[in-house]
Amino acid sequence: MKLHFDQAVIIGVGLIGGSLGMILRRKQLASSVVGVGRRIENLKTAVNVGAIDRYVVDSKEAVKDADLVILATPVDTYERHLKEWASCLRPGAIVTDVGSVKGELVERSERQMPAGVHFVGGHPIAGKEKTGAAAGSEDLFTGRRCILTPTQQTNPQALEQIQALWQEAGAVVLTMDPQLHDKILGAVSHLPHAAAFALMTALIEIRREVHGLDLAGHSGGGLRDTTRIAASSPEMWRDIFLWNRENVVAWIRAYERSLGELRQLIQTGDAAGIEKMLERAKEEREKFPIRT
Amino acid sequence: MKLHFDQAVIIGVGLIGGSLGMILRRKQLASSVVGVGRRIENLKTAVNVGAIDRYVVDSKEAVKDADLVILATPVDTYERHLKEWASCLRPGAIVTDVGSVKGELVERSERQMPAGVHFVGGHPIAGKEKTGAAAGSEDLFTGRRCILTPTQQTNPQALEQIQALWQEAGAVVLTMDPQLHDKILGAVSHLPHAAAFALMTALIEIRREVHGLDLAGHSGGGLRDTTRIAASSPEMWRDIFLWNRENVVAWIRAYERSLGELRQLIQTGDAAGIEKMLERAKEEREKFPIRT
Repeated sequence: MKLHFDQAVIIGVGLIGGSLGMILRRKQLASSVVGVGRRIENLKTAVNVGAIDRYVVDSKEAVKDADLVILATPVDTYERHLKEWASCLRPGAIVTDVGSVKGELVERSERQMPAGVHFVGGHPIAGKEKTGAAAGSEDLFTGRRCILTPTQQTNPQALEQIQALWQEAGAVVLTMDPQLHDKILGAVSHLPHAAAFALMTALIEIRREVHGLDLAGHSGGGLRDTTRIAASSPEMWRDIFLWNRENVVAWIRAYERSLGELRQLIQTGDAAGIEKMLERAKEEREKFPIRT
Repeated sequence: MKLHFDQAVIIGVGLIGGSLGMILRRKQLASSVVGVGRRIENLKTAVNVGAIDRYVVDSKEAVKDADLVILATPVDTYERHLKEWASCLRPGAIVTDVGSVKGELVERSERQMPAGVHFVGGHPIAGKEKTGAAAGSEDLFTGRRCILTPTQQTNPQALEQIQALWQEAGAVVLTMDPQLHDKILGAVSHLPHAAAFALMTALIEIRREVHGLDLAGHSGGGLRDTTRIAASSPEMWRDIFLWNRENVVAWIRAYERSLGELRQLIQTGDAAGIEKMLERAKEEREKFPIRT
């Protein structure tokens, strides 16, 4: 199977959408790559950096001739977007997304596809410190994982094409049930983000009580590492927390329990209990691969 | 003032003690550097890597001719060590330490000094991934902060000498009240460590519930950073948590509150509230200096 799209449309030409556009164009995986967005300035940049061939403002106009639509906007906007233009899609078209939450979002998106249009949920796990098309790069997904979340509704050929697309992007492609995706990512990604945001919040509160506590000035390597991701986008993480609400709440509760347990051990001076808990954590952490 | 000691004794020739020994020797700040420890193998290594001139097993023997004693053993052993040999110290000698907890430990150590012997509490904030004299280096403290914690009992000349010693080691020397040190370090160092250990513990618990959750395999940059310090020494952190019990318990409680608050906002779907909390955390985190 030769992977080739006639007209690929990218809705939301940010870091992820822009990088995918570059890959589609440079690898000639699409005859034409059209960008759709609200910020004209960013769309112009996207043309200049080679992320898209051209842009349009009217998404209905863009998608009606598309055989591939990549939805790369914040997850909270999916419903609005699909309501706007899903009915204009032509049979045989594939719609895929790049959102960090899947579960319910995949089900809802599937329900909005007209007959003969195929939805394939996707989640490339790639760095996102910078934003916008200008930060895009053909290498963004190289060696990174991309999780696809097919359901019983998913068209096997459409899934194959999206798999091939991510393989062309250099990603390691995994498939996973969308609900399981949200449980797992809720644990390994959303919970650490909640932990980091809450830790910074706690330190701000503690500073009220400790005269002379300069968080930036006194920050060491440990604090810097544990809070690095607290500088992530508030809008994006607000949406992820809300769209994966059930899992995130459950996992934060689990974290509150383990913190409470450690506090209790310290409070009662249970040296052996503390050491046991720390040993277990260390042992598990040391199994993590060392990456660059 | 020319900084020079006649006989410097290092009790506990690990990473910190060993590195200080190298500095004392190479910069000729002491005529003789004697190491004391339990593990003969490590002491032999310490001689080979140039951390000490010689070693003895009997600490009483070592300290009786010392004008400088550096206590670089785990904080939980201070009392035992000082009981063993403090009475052998000669008047005019200076005892200093490198422990991560100060407060009560400084008061207790001061009380164990015989008349005319001066105690100066110290805490060099230096990386500790590797341990043992073999990992020591003359550069370990270069550009790092070292907090000295003088009290009303502290002899000004002794403080000056220890300040000069750390300046020779390349450290940025700060002085701070020992109780304030424990409040501040409790917040910026001990709390993040408790957070990381408890986060790994929570993930181990979550894994019981989620079939297919491979913590190491699914770990991304966020999880790796937030949990990196959960691979720290369980013995060392057990002792730090217990010796700074009151502050650590109070700050973990503050963290439990902010986590509970975030969970509550997510649970009730308070998008504006979540965003506000995340914005505040991000703003504070972005004030941190970027370090290498």
